[in-house]
Amino acid sequence: MLAPVAPGMERMRSIMEAQVRSDAAAVQAMTAHVGSFRGKQLRAALVLLVGKAVQARDDEHPEVAAIVELIHLATLVHDDVLDGARVRRRVACVNERWDNQIAVLLGDFLYARAFHLSTTLRSRLASQLLADTTAVLCTGEIEQAALRRDFELTQAKYEDIAAKKTGSLYSAACELGARHPSEDREDPRVARLGVEMAAFGREVGLAFQIVDDCLDVVGEEEVVGKSVGNDVEDGKLTLPVLHAFARADAATRDRMRAIYAPNAAGAATGAPRRIELLRECCDLSAGVEQAMARAHELVANARARLAPLPASPAREALDAIALFTLERRF
Amino acid sequence: MLAPVAPGMERMRSIMEAQVRSDAAAVQAMTAHVGSFRGKQLRAALVLLVGKAVQARDDEHPEVAAIVELIHLATLVHDDVLDGARVRRRVACVNERWDNQIAVLLGDFLYARAFHLSTTLRSRLASQLLADTTAVLCTGEIEQAALRRDFELTQAKYEDIAAKKTGSLYSAACELGARHPSEDREDPRVARLGVEMAAFGREVGLAFQIVDDCLDVVGEEEVVGKSVGNDVEDGKLTLPVLHAFARADAATRDRMRAIYAPNAAGAATGAPRRIELLRECCDLSAGVEQAMARAHELVANARARLAPLPASPAREALDAIALFTLERRF
Repeated sequence: MLAPVAPGMERMRSIMEAQVRSDAAAVQAMTAHVGSFRGKQLRAALVLLVGKAVQARDDEHPEVAAIVELIHLATLVHDDVLDGARVRRRVACVNERWDNQIAVLLGDFLYARAFHLSTTLRSRLASQLLADTTAVLCTGEIEQAALRRDFELTQAKYEDIAAKKTGSLYSAACELGARHPSEDREDPRVARLGVEMAAFGREVGLAFQIVDDCLDVVGEEEVVGKSVGNDVEDGKLTLPVLHAFARADAATRDRMRAIYAPNAAGAATGAPRRIELLRECCDLSAGVEQAMARAHELVANARARLAPLPASPAREALDAIALFTLERRF
Repeated sequence: MLAPVAPGMERMRSIMEAQVRSDAAAVQAMTAHVGSFRGKQLRAALVLLVGKAVQARDDEHPEVAAIVELIHLATLVHDDVLDGARVRRRVACVNERWDNQIAVLLGDFLYARAFHLSTTLRSRLASQLLADTTAVLCTGEIEQAALRRDFELTQAKYEDIAAKKTGSLYSAACELGARHPSEDREDPRVARLGVEMAAFGREVGLAFQIVDDCLDVVGEEEVVGKSVGNDVEDGKLTLPVLHAFARADAATRDRMRAIYAPNAAGAATGAPRRIELLRECCDLSAGVEQAMARAHELVANARARLAPLPASPAREALDAIALFTLERRF
């Protein structure tokens, strides 16, 4: 899928490694550890593939891709603290291997290195867009945390939050692939491409988040490669659960609310986890089906945005990534 | 003390407020809350005062000062998570008022807004220097966390860590006051001033940290305005404790090691806190005296760097800030 940008991905990885290298032994041990989290690096691939697909001037795109992945890595390290997660891509989380203190600081370090790298590029577009995106991303996470256990959460607000916390970085990656390094006097054609590709990224990212939320309620830890049921444990109401709630009768709704109540379950050692109680209590598979239908709709919209681009292996790969979002089980 | 830069400080505060304003109600409530942490804002004052004292082109200095304070505020919010602190400047910490999840995200949001603001300035110097400084600052904090409970810590390594975690931002503030917005073709006189002012900031910051560490072991919570004894509770070995350890006999050293051991004390409710045990166990006041002598030496070095500057109210204020470092009780 990523063959058209294999050399760029390789270059991106060595730029990332160079950025997180540290003379401090403690930091070096940790950045080496998080290097093993390396996942699909889809966000980096999006920068490079969009650049190729729109035939942009792309000599600095591996740097932009590395910055995007560093920001993503920082959010993962902090997310794991927030979620109390223990396993990430079959590797112990930083908060599990060291502790929460270290995980917070390491995430901050990764953000700082990402911003530092962005200030060395030809134009300021990446610095500005990515600093802004990071603030949006945090805003989405904060809103999500503030709305935990609130069954009044609407689908629209859920999507707004998911677009902020996940869609925004996908969107910025695609927009930068189309626009970097243009700055002040931008070609109107490039500006239009930027808008379209940003929307493509936002839709793919939102679909990705919906699928992620479905996997958290119906996935198996061994397949997904990370802890599941965390959202439920943490009180986060996700789209499949909101749909299941909307379909449930009054008695089931009361039971669902009770499962989400703080310390209602899992407080005593050996008590069933909330996710297990929830799976027994309501029709999660119907909720998942409805959420997945929305993800399919988003991916169809996203793919339609690729049609005007000239045919190329990069365009095909972008299309495949959009489709992959729906099919992934991990 | 800050009279020469009162209008700039006022402007800095409104820039800060504008940067952290958010349409998301949850974020707005939190940034309004951290606004009440407003302390001495010494780092911002250093940017403005150094700018005046070296007669720099200073129209963007309030923005630079706001960025420095935002970064500092982000570190405070994250520090409070790390320290498990409950009170900051007589106001509940974010982690106490909301929770650790929120505090991590809010700190990230503040960092992102700081970097965003830095990308809007005339030159890239502030972006680059402050992103770099943030990485150094995190490195210092990570090293400190990794070396908890290690009584082999030398004074040199303690100072290296304190220079990174505290000195670096003071240093960057002073350097930017002298150099911003110069970039590529910098006047050699300005470059030299930048080096001197960076050293001034580093020394003042290091002295500030030493005094802070002394207050943590001998201060009273009511006077200091924040929790004391946190470093001891958290296993951090600071200069006054290292000096007290060096002066102690073998039996006292063993008792000190036991107090610092994880869960040795304070595990049971009502048990005395580690700081109380430490105060009884060793000669902390001698350790504090020796640490304060080093702080005096650093401040003397720093003040000497001001002598070549033309006499001005700003130079007097910088001198007063350096002295204030030693006299503060809060």
